[in-house]
Amino acid sequence: MAEEKDFALLTDLYELTMCASYFDNKINDTATFDLFIRDLPPNRSYFIAAGLEDAFNYLKNIRFTEEHIKFLKSKKIFKDDFLNYLKNFKFTGDVFALPEGTIFFPNEPILSVTAPIIEAQIVETFLLNAINLQTTIAIKASRVVYAAKNKPVIDFSLRRTQGTDAGMKVARTSYITGCVGTSNVLAGLKYKIPIYGTMAHSFVMAFEEEEKSFGAYSKTFPDTSIFLVDTYDTLKGVEKAALVAKELKKQGHKLKAIRLDSGDLVALSKSARKILDKNGLKYVNIFASGNLDEYKVEELLKKGALIDAFGVGTAMGVSKDAPYCDVVYKLVELNNKNKHLPTMKLSKGKVTYPGKKQVYRITDKNKNYIKDILALRDEKIDGKELLVKVMEKGKIIYKMPSLEEIRNKTKENLLKLPEKYKKLKNAAKYKVEISPELRKMTEKLNKKLSFD
Amino acid sequence: MAEEKDFALLTDLYELTMCASYFDNKINDTATFDLFIRDLPPNRSYFIAAGLEDAFNYLKNIRFTEEHIKFLKSKKIFKDDFLNYLKNFKFTGDVFALPEGTIFFPNEPILSVTAPIIEAQIVETFLLNAINLQTTIAIKASRVVYAAKNKPVIDFSLRRTQGTDAGMKVARTSYITGCVGTSNVLAGLKYKIPIYGTMAHSFVMAFEEEEKSFGAYSKTFPDTSIFLVDTYDTLKGVEKAALVAKELKKQGHKLKAIRLDSGDLVALSKSARKILDKNGLKYVNIFASGNLDEYKVEELLKKGALIDAFGVGTAMGVSKDAPYCDVVYKLVELNNKNKHLPTMKLSKGKVTYPGKKQVYRITDKNKNYIKDILALRDEKIDGKELLVKVMEKGKIIYKMPSLEEIRNKTKENLLKLPEKYKKLKNAAKYKVEISPELRKMTEKLNKKLSFD
Repeated sequence: MAEEKDFALLTDLYELTMCASYFDNKINDTATFDLFIRDLPPNRSYFIAAGLEDAFNYLKNIRFTEEHIKFLKSKKIFKDDFLNYLKNFKFTGDVFALPEGTIFFPNEPILSVTAPIIEAQIVETFLLNAINLQTTIAIKASRVVYAAKNKPVIDFSLRRTQGTDAGMKVARTSYITGCVGTSNVLAGLKYKIPIYGTMAHSFVMAFEEEEKSFGAYSKTFPDTSIFLVDTYDTLKGVEKAALVAKELKKQGHKLKAIRLDSGDLVALSKSARKILDKNGLKYVNIFASGNLDEYKVEELLKKGALIDAFGVGTAMGVSKDAPYCDVVYKLVELNNKNKHLPTMKLSKGKVTYPGKKQVYRITDKNKNYIKDILALRDEKIDGKELLVKVMEKGKIIYKMPSLEEIRNKTKENLLKLPEKYKKLKNAAKYKVEISPELRKMTEKLNKKLSFD
Repeated sequence: MAEEKDFALLTDLYELTMCASYFDNKINDTATFDLFIRDLPPNRSYFIAAGLEDAFNYLKNIRFTEEHIKFLKSKKIFKDDFLNYLKNFKFTGDVFALPEGTIFFPNEPILSVTAPIIEAQIVETFLLNAINLQTTIAIKASRVVYAAKNKPVIDFSLRRTQGTDAGMKVARTSYITGCVGTSNVLAGLKYKIPIYGTMAHSFVMAFEEEEKSFGAYSKTFPDTSIFLVDTYDTLKGVEKAALVAKELKKQGHKLKAIRLDSGDLVALSKSARKILDKNGLKYVNIFASGNLDEYKVEELLKKGALIDAFGVGTAMGVSKDAPYCDVVYKLVELNNKNKHLPTMKLSKGKVTYPGKKQVYRITDKNKNYIKDILALRDEKIDGKELLVKVMEKGKIIYKMPSLEEIRNKTKENLLKLPEKYKKLKNAAKYKVEISPELRKMTEKLNKKLSFD
């Protein structure tokens, strides 16, 4: 695993070799790089900015240690003067960013970094890694929460997330985007996220009879038990859970829920509800889990499943149907010999918009989103500016919101995104206009570069 | 991110609540849990064991710190006697495992943990997380390497892996399974994996002319430069690269390669080869990258692309088409009142095989794999035993191989797996037989549990 003190080396080698060559050629003009996503992944219709806090902390703290320098020296790739430069390396640039929880769209910068080109280049890989994971999960989790309508969704993904860091970030991001909590205990400690748990099949199997396992568990947790009922025969399991629940009731306690984890959840939830109700256990909730994702949750509710809460694991935790975003970090301006030179590349299918930019959001009188305008930063456009200056000369000048504040803001933002953009499939395409000035600059530069 | 000292809490809450209830009910019989994968992901035909080293280190080192106990206490879920128990918690069990690099198949245990049930249960989540990621990536990377035939493949995925831990593990696992190295510098430091780098489009764009960027880069790296040629017009880029390469040649240096990162790589590589050859630059390699995976690499080579090496990123680093394995951890035996009771669950579509097991591999006279037999551990079967005892009473009794040793072993193993099982699509299904004794036990238990 990568420890925080080693994040400076958590980079592609080419960032360092390019910087060595800039250094060698005495090039350190001020550069602006935009971090943005080219395209929407399949079935996605919006992005949610996430991972910014990690990005800022990285930029604030990046340092090359003695061990790093020694290692780089041992590779015999770099000259000593560059390694000496790295010893004192700090990020001293300015950063504009979309606050976490901001809804955004393709080509809109999430981060825009302006710094001496060596500094701006060296941070590329880590920034992409940080933003990619959390933004990918933010969209996925928000879709699951949307599908569940107002029923609680809990993140159950830790066992199958891609590594330990992802386990933490998925808990954080899914909480930001509307999950009510996570099964990940460490995320509870580190992020103060509510933690939830039920029981596993092994617990039921550890007792000679299913009913005894329920009895033993509720002895320990008389008011918070959730019985897993599908280890052998689901409906027989529900009957046994009901028996134990009635015993608990006599003692003044309430079974919290039963959990269904396999089989036809629509039919089983209806039958389970009947069994519970007939036993006077209307207050016992039905919790569902087992290979769920937004598509299955939507279908279950559409078919009338009587499910009160969902535990969603793997498919959300790895964003199964779209496990990454096409996030890139592109040079858009270079301050060369006191001229501001916008830049762009022309590689097939990969054209980028040049220049320092701002994203303007146009809303109706209720603040519902209508469209965005991607413009040059110094253009005057009527609309809400989405990119906020978060770092100046390497210092964070932005008050980091708490996780609860980000979560509330995200909820508010999602409410302002009209329904037609939130459908799980075939959602409407949100309009992002290119401003006249940005369009002009792009065309001019395109011509210039094509004829060079 | 999750630091190593906090791994004890990197667990699902239910592991702790179940253990609290075992503790409360004075249940601490010896249990055996198998960690295995139920099904092959789409297009996959084998698994490669990976992530074991992390699993063993976790089992050896798991401790609950003061901070952990304080946090758990604050949640008001647990009684003090259980929290006191956790303060002194250590894993004292026995572990059998498939050595890293072992090829295996569905239902075959990768890990088999025998310990007092509280210890065996509490470690579930972390073990699944560790094995899932690396095993998932091991298969994917081995497929990419297979598709590339004998051409080198380099891991370029760090920027899009799911978090920082995945960035490290992907570099490690892809190296084990045949990649020649990684772009991830920290993986170079921590795992001693060869590191590689080229240049990015931004470097080319930082100069007013493409040719100047090549000149500047090769000034710094006269013998190791790889020029990225597709920033504006690929073939014009190759011409410019050739000019600079000829200059280098005059000075006694050799351009290492050019890199193609977009467009029709078959046609472009052929044209680029011609340009290079015509300029007397036969020694300059052609390196390709840009949204590659095993399917594209196979197709490129089939169509005669003149590519000498591949940089493979996102699709490999997140195992795009199968971003997880259906890895589970199931109770298979419980030593209850001095009786060994095999256990299994019957949930629909999720039946597991009971009892402590061994995997036997049957090979031909050249040691090529023919089939496996999944058997009870104390059965006598003629074949190579794959599961090795790696921990005894909480101590590692297994000499951890070096990464190079694992890499060599994996290569050897893959050579013994007949070609028909390695095809990227529609590969043959490898036979895993269930031994007579295991079958008998499964049927008996099935009947018993169904009639309970």
